Amino acid sequence: MSAVSRLITKRFSSTVTIKPTPSKAHHHQPLPSSSFPSGYLLTGLHAGVKKNPEILDVGLILSTSERPTTAAACFTRNAFKAAPVVVSEQILAENVGKARAIVLNSGCANAVTGKQGMEDAWAMVKETDALLDRSSSSERHDTLVMSTGVIGQTLPISKILTAIRSQHKDQKTRSLGNDFGAWERAAKAFMTTDTFPKLRSRVFTINGVEYRMAGMDKGAGMIHPNMGPPTIGPLHATLLAAVMTDAAVSSRSLQRALTYAVERSFNSISVDGEMSTNDTILLMANGAAAERTGSDVQEIDEDRDPAAFEAFRNELTEFATDLAKLVVRDGEGATKFVTVTVKGAPTYEDAHNIASRISTSALVKTALYGEDANWGRVLSAAGSVRLSAPLHPDRVSVTFVPSDGTAPLPVLVNGEPEKVDEDRASEILGLEDFEVLVDLGGGDQAEVARYYTCDFSYEYVRINGDYRS
Amino acid sequence: MSAVSRLITKRFSSTVTIKPTPSKAHHHQPLPSSSFPSGYLLTGLHAGVKKNPEILDVGLILSTSERPTTAAACFTRNAFKAAPVVVSEQILAENVGKARAIVLNSGCANAVTGKQGMEDAWAMVKETDALLDRSSSSERHDTLVMSTGVIGQTLPISKILTAIRSQHKDQKTRSLGNDFGAWERAAKAFMTTDTFPKLRSRVFTINGVEYRMAGMDKGAGMIHPNMGPPTIGPLHATLLAAVMTDAAVSSRSLQRALTYAVERSFNSISVDGEMSTNDTILLMANGAAAERTGSDVQEIDEDRDPAAFEAFRNELTEFATDLAKLVVRDGEGATKFVTVTVKGAPTYEDAHNIASRISTSALVKTALYGEDANWGRVLSAAGSVRLSAPLHPDRVSVTFVPSDGTAPLPVLVNGEPEKVDEDRASEILGLEDFEVLVDLGGGDQAEVARYYTCDFSYEYVRINGDYRS
Repeated sequence: MSAVSRLITKRFSSTVTIKPTPSKAHHHQPLPSSSFPSGYLLTGLHAGVKKNPEILDVGLILSTSERPTTAAACFTRNAFKAAPVVVSEQILAENVGKARAIVLNSGCANAVTGKQGMEDAWAMVKETDALLDRSSSSERHDTLVMSTGVIGQTLPISKILTAIRSQHKDQKTRSLGNDFGAWERAAKAFMTTDTFPKLRSRVFTINGVEYRMAGMDKGAGMIHPNMGPPTIGPLHATLLAAVMTDAAVSSRSLQRALTYAVERSFNSISVDGEMSTNDTILLMANGAAAERTGSDVQEIDEDRDPAAFEAFRNELTEFATDLAKLVVRDGEGATKFVTVTVKGAPTYEDAHNIASRISTSALVKTALYGEDANWGRVLSAAGSVRLSAPLHPDRVSVTFVPSDGTAPLPVLVNGEPEKVDEDRASEILGLEDFEVLVDLGGGDQAEVARYYTCDFSYEYVRINGDYRS
Repeated sequence: MSAVSRLITKRFSSTVTIKPTPSKAHHHQPLPSSSFPSGYLLTGLHAGVKKNPEILDVGLILSTSERPTTAAACFTRNAFKAAPVVVSEQILAENVGKARAIVLNSGCANAVTGKQGMEDAWAMVKETDALLDRSSSSERHDTLVMSTGVIGQTLPISKILTAIRSQHKDQKTRSLGNDFGAWERAAKAFMTTDTFPKLRSRVFTINGVEYRMAGMDKGAGMIHPNMGPPTIGPLHATLLAAVMTDAAVSSRSLQRALTYAVERSFNSISVDGEMSTNDTILLMANGAAAERTGSDVQEIDEDRDPAAFEAFRNELTEFATDLAKLVVRDGEGATKFVTVTVKGAPTYEDAHNIASRISTSALVKTALYGEDANWGRVLSAAGSVRLSAPLHPDRVSVTFVPSDGTAPLPVLVNGEPEKVDEDRASEILGLEDFEVLVDLGGGDQAEVARYYTCDFSYEYVRINGDYRS
């Protein structure tokens, strides 16, 4: 088969065998308890949003640190923001970047649910506030809320509140903890079409102090986030993530680090190009590393210690990228994990826009599924983006790069098609992981953007279109 | 089944039966010869770009009028413009809106073909020029050229030139004509994955003179055009169209009318959201109605007679819309023809952008295939567009409108979900044609945009991903 666009094909109706999606279970493994940040309690519960009693649908994450816990967030830019997004934004603004708990549910997005939806989101916040050690006179809300699932249905709120109440200190049913099992339960409560819980942890050192970070995310469809900090407004894709660290970070620096990290991680992945009404990423920093390490830990702040801030920001970016990649890996119907790298563009934004366009092209994604090194479609998608400066077609090169360390395969060099070794192309495209590298020829000084995407399969159509069969 | 987003579903690998795409053969019917514009000769030939000798792959359209023939065009805005696009743009600019012939081939797009591609496109132009009655000293080129098919391969140019030469006046093989058979042959030469030739004609009267218009187009995949006049630059989707009229229209007014018509027709359809390297729409006006009707026909010009110009522009817009709809009707794998109407937006551009986003959403299109009245996905797609003014979610309504004249089904009214009659929803979504109407609540003075789209099926994935099976 040749590696060029095939626009000509016959049509018939027929029976096709859907390629089994590769098992992804190995992406979930036990993590050492010593890698989890101190000063957090977590659990996952079955409240009854979903029918199956073995499925967890409500998650709780509480900070128990004696130090102040700072919080930051990025929310969907969709004009139809779900009630939990509106409520969490408001709380974070009123608290000037502080929060001590997260409550979430899967199975129902509490989106486009009118006044009832707002009341329900507030009820979840208040019930979770009551789990925290707070002065009884506190009027502040300390809980942020997230929901994911069906749009346009109201929550079974009394079931959810009952589940939250089961975690009061005096309850025998209390299951909150800080071991692997507790983190895993919370991660499971995030899941919708996900095939495995997405949980990761990380240990790093800044200025001689050991810090820990752990977090989870979810998402398999409606994934093409475009999230911004609360002040910017809304973003896109049903992607939920919560990241917790025991570092102490000032509110302002925490938000800056998260905004930077999200742009390069969650905002650089696409499963199906869809921005959701609920996308939310929450980050808490509780400073509990001080107690654990016995160090006199200074709060990380960009103005006070730029080097420490940059180190933290980079750790967070790498961690967020790991979590974001898990979402693509588990994309609905995905059989491939493809990195789209664009370099030599006039600006980072241009490179990012081209990488995004290639990553969402239905023709590119069906070609990836068909294991066809179809650079014509890659080029056509790239060319459809409006850039800040004109492209020079005669400087553009496209290369398929295998993930196994063997030689890359150039298919277009400086605008001229290569004579492609078809066997070699099939070898690379047959891998589960590979990279599509587009060099626009703008030279070394120009910017590089990287997007993570998956293929478009029969299984995607089945999951999203064929409910009724 | 409920009419809400279903994000939760199980996964398995399995065999599915692809729904047979409904037969579309009835969209091609004989047309009366009296409806074709005078002063044109056409044919379609088998040159050998495609292997099967029964398939036509080269088309010729010549104007034989004694009056000057004006021409206008819209071309792809893709940065990687194919050689025929570059050549046609150049000729039209040099001739200041005049041309007398069109040559086209299917089976090979002559795109990303470097210097050889440019030479080949010029060779097609020159060989076709030689079919025209021209003074032998003319240095002007009178032919515009279009190609569609595989990207990255060079044309079998000698076969194409031989085919063109078979139409010289002294050749017995000459098949040029102006009857239905001739127009049909030309329309067939356009086809790639199309399942039927797309040919329409129209008769209309302006200032008491009868004019005729006929034309053809092609396209089934890589369809999401965004075309502009030559002065604006490039556009998107492998969509080719040629429209001929025997009205006399000034070059400037012809281009203005075409630009207006294309924005509301070809730039308002989407099969798969892909902009191609080759999209081209050509329009010729040869004034031959004068001879046919014996009238002293004045050239239509906006400045001279604005009412006549507007009448012509509106006829052209309706005709172009008919041709554009045929492309969606024949979309790769399509089982539905869906009109997406957006009203009550701040501006026409806002309405157009939202209609475009809904029409390209993979989640909306798989839901249409699944016959699921999933307004949550419609809303989520609409909300992801950046607008010139903020949306008011509590004023937004969504209605499914059947094509059979029965009652529309509101599913969201002023931001509040309706209790939906599921049997009625299934009835409407089960139709081949229906409308999704989104009212943003901006009131009557606000703009209306209409997009035509199709569903996203297993068959689309098979056509574009599964070559190798």
